Amino acid sequence: MGLRLGEIAEYVGCELRGEPDTTIERVCTLQAGVADGISFLANPHYRQFLPDTRAGAVILAGADADQCPVAALLADDPYVTYARVAQLLYPVTAPESGIDPSAVVAPGARVDATAYVGPNVVIETGVRVGPGSLIGAGCILQQDCRVGENTRLIANITLCRQVVIGDRVLIHPGVVIGSDGFGIANDHGVWVKLPQVGGVRIGNDVEIGANTTIDRGAVEDTVIEDGVKLDNQIQVAHNVYIGAHTAIAGCTAIAGSARIGKHCMIGGAVGITGHLEIADGVVITAMTLVTKSIARPGLYSSGLASMPNKQWNKTLIRLRQLDDMAKRLAALEKKLDK
Amino acid sequence: MGLRLGEIAEYVGCELRGEPDTTIERVCTLQAGVADGISFLANPHYRQFLPDTRAGAVILAGADADQCPVAALLADDPYVTYARVAQLLYPVTAPESGIDPSAVVAPGARVDATAYVGPNVVIETGVRVGPGSLIGAGCILQQDCRVGENTRLIANITLCRQVVIGDRVLIHPGVVIGSDGFGIANDHGVWVKLPQVGGVRIGNDVEIGANTTIDRGAVEDTVIEDGVKLDNQIQVAHNVYIGAHTAIAGCTAIAGSARIGKHCMIGGAVGITGHLEIADGVVITAMTLVTKSIARPGLYSSGLASMPNKQWNKTLIRLRQLDDMAKRLAALEKKLDK
Amino acid sequence: MGLRLGEIAEYVGCELRGEPDTTIERVCTLQAGVADGISFLANPHYRQFLPDTRAGAVILAGADADQCPVAALLADDPYVTYARVAQLLYPVTAPESGIDPSAVVAPGARVDATAYVGPNVVIETGVRVGPGSLIGAGCILQQDCRVGENTRLIANITLCRQVVIGDRVLIHPGVVIGSDGFGIANDHGVWVKLPQVGGVRIGNDVEIGANTTIDRGAVEDTVIEDGVKLDNQIQVAHNVYIGAHTAIAGCTAIAGSARIGKHCMIGGAVGITGHLEIADGVVITAMTLVTKSIARPGLYSSGLASMPNKQWNKTLIRLRQLDDMAKRLAALEKKLDK
Repeated sequence: MGLRLGEIAEYVGCELRGEPDTTIERVCTLQAGVADGISFLANPHYRQFLPDTRAGAVILAGADADQCPVAALLADDPYVTYARVAQLLYPVTAPESGIDPSAVVAPGARVDATAYVGPNVVIETGVRVGPGSLIGAGCILQQDCRVGENTRLIANITLCRQVVIGDRVLIHPGVVIGSDGFGIANDHGVWVKLPQVGGVRIGNDVEIGANTTIDRGAVEDTVIEDGVKLDNQIQVAHNVYIGAHTAIAGCTAIAGSARIGKHCMIGGAVGITGHLEIADGVVITAMTLVTKSIARPGLYSSGLASMPNKQWNKTLIRLRQLDDMAKRLAALEKKLDK
Repeated sequence: MGLRLGEIAEYVGCELRGEPDTTIERVCTLQAGVADGISFLANPHYRQFLPDTRAGAVILAGADADQCPVAALLADDPYVTYARVAQLLYPVTAPESGIDPSAVVAPGARVDATAYVGPNVVIETGVRVGPGSLIGAGCILQQDCRVGENTRLIANITLCRQVVIGDRVLIHPGVVIGSDGFGIANDHGVWVKLPQVGGVRIGNDVEIGANTTIDRGAVEDTVIEDGVKLDNQIQVAHNVYIGAHTAIAGCTAIAGSARIGKHCMIGGAVGITGHLEIADGVVITAMTLVTKSIARPGLYSSGLASMPNKQWNKTLIRLRQLDDMAKRLAALEKKLDK
Repeated sequence: MGLRLGEIAEYVGCELRGEPDTTIERVCTLQAGVADGISFLANPHYRQFLPDTRAGAVILAGADADQCPVAALLADDPYVTYARVAQLLYPVTAPESGIDPSAVVAPGARVDATAYVGPNVVIETGVRVGPGSLIGAGCILQQDCRVGENTRLIANITLCRQVVIGDRVLIHPGVVIGSDGFGIANDHGVWVKLPQVGGVRIGNDVEIGANTTIDRGAVEDTVIEDGVKLDNQIQVAHNVYIGAHTAIAGCTAIAGSARIGKHCMIGGAVGITGHLEIADGVVITAMTLVTKSIARPGLYSSGLASMPNKQWNKTLIRLRQLDDMAKRLAALEKKLDK
């Protein structure tokens, strides 16, 4: 589409150092800058590429402006400003409306006239799809699901019965919402299934990454609050509650009835066991295992960074001796005290 | 539907303390009890909610009965009894029979007249689907698969060629069974594929969670025995054997040719490496890595519980010094012995 | 089909000890050997089964030939030779060509006349599918995707817009390629989405396991080079680069902008954090967490092997005291030095 740099600066409310009439057509990286592209510098790892960039303009902090060889947009938070500029350059286009003739829509379902239902979609009885929403190819919406306004299900997503999705939600392919939770009781060695009769409620402005699974509640609902962002391949078990504006990176597994606060950031491949509570504002680094409630905001970890294998094997042997070492150390202290 | 409390007590063979004519319509939690709902107390974490519950009745151990302000059903194992009551209140309804006109069923396939095949299902040649089974919307059954009686494939499940599924099996959306195992041989830096010509056999009364994957065997079959319960996003590699009535929680990864016993319980996000054997009755806690065979029943672990990040970083530094610390400790002991 | 043992030996260039006219129809294991089957011995764990095998022939190293009770094919690398023999016995058959009448192919798409498009496939506008390729049942190819020659998408695979796949690629069910990367910026507590405008390029001879997800790039492309082999349920985030002939086992999670070299082998359930570089020829064992760049080839680890739970709990307590232990050890050393 193309925007003048001056327009962009005005839109995001940033000082522009450079020619306002330059046309920006796209985003680009610092390393592969192009004359009609706008880039950004937020992660210091990429500062090395600034002096030689050929981007048309760079969004950066004032402190980096002197090193910028091209037009600069000075931003308090370059990453956020870049996000807004990119949204301006790549607007989400409203889907065409209508129902593809190959879709199978049950008579009892209500799809708003401004919504789009793609090829081979299956919409069962009692489902409601709100205005402006997109149900991409191959999605399956089982009985009584509700999808809000301007929500996009990209493709091949399964909503089991009675799942409720809010407005402006974005769901990527392969996601399954509303599958049965893992509720089984052991009767003398044989597992008896607990019917999973709760539902799933997804708030507004939520994003859910590819192949993530969110189970329905056992009795009450599994709940994902407004503004939550879930990456790919996350497992959300039954009756989990995730507070508003929490972001969770890929492959994290959350066990049943865990309650996660607002504004948390949870790193990739984290494990969270069931029936515990994590306070608002907790940050957890990658591959940490959380086995107890966390009552205060702050940064938590238990991911073990890699070592050369020989060193690691020695460490493993010593770990198995650690309790013994502690006792021997105490014994030495005693001996010396005498 | 509604059941009298007296009927329920009789069905599960429990002593009822309370009015047998109360009608129970649903299950509920202790915290959000309703007058026509039945709840349970099994996890002591929830005992705090018992005294104030407004449930119509509670299933609990005799020792908790005095604290129960409403009707009580006394059970030896309240969780199992609750499971049976919930099954009574929410019976699995037999699917309607017949083949949706949008399904694509190959001429050579045999679908029992009492089975149901949903919209946009694809059934390839040689497939057999038994009486009372449900093949939900969007499922794909490739050549020569066999599905037993009263088995339910909820939706969007892929069975690759020649997969055999037993009776009363329940499979959730996104599951893939019979994909090629990861069999590759390194020929001077280039990977050569080993054709995966084994199959997959799933026993009776198995449940498989959303987006779980089970690879076909390299030569012989991958086998899941009767009564096994698999949660979501589990990876079962080629030629794995899982013994009867073993339950595995979400996101666990099992490498090729691992052999897992009967009546095991394996926590979430566990890793099990290949070509090893785990005895019957082994219990493994969340995020444990199993690298060697486990010969005896018992509880096994290696998941690292989280700490505040500052403390963890110190621990990581010390871990790297651990071998050195052990040597220094031994040297001190020697010195003091002299 | 059936091949003479003499033919097989000639094809793979190996010495045959045994009767060349024996007919081989299939592969088999040593344990379950059959007279018309060929097996192999590569993993020493299975050597115990050699003396009693009833296989028609065994591919093995010369050193094992004396223990072989049946015909032997002597190979420098029995596993690679076995792979080639198995490929000979189980050739990949060219798919029938044509488009199933239930597929929905947009007018603007170009599917080669020798390609096969299965039931309920959706092919959107601008897509190109090359000669000899197979697009199995239920696959969805969104706008402008390109699939090369003799590539096989088994079933139920989603390619989001503009994904480019090379020749002779094999993709298993449930795979999602080209979903949005997890690009979000935090604006005073609320997440702002960064449009993901890069693409995904998959080279030639790549294999991708069931339910693996590969996100599109934020600005530039996510790239999987030639000959890469990915197992099931791997997460590849935006702008990851995986060098040629690298193999990655199941459930590994790779964060954004990680750059992995050529000829690496990465074990299952490994976590790799973002914006780092791993050299060519690096090998990483199962459940390791990589948080920093690895500059040299070699073997790296941090997976903690399981212990009996009692021992592990003691170790965990001591781990929390480790920094204190180190200080006390140093104090003792000082004291003794005086």
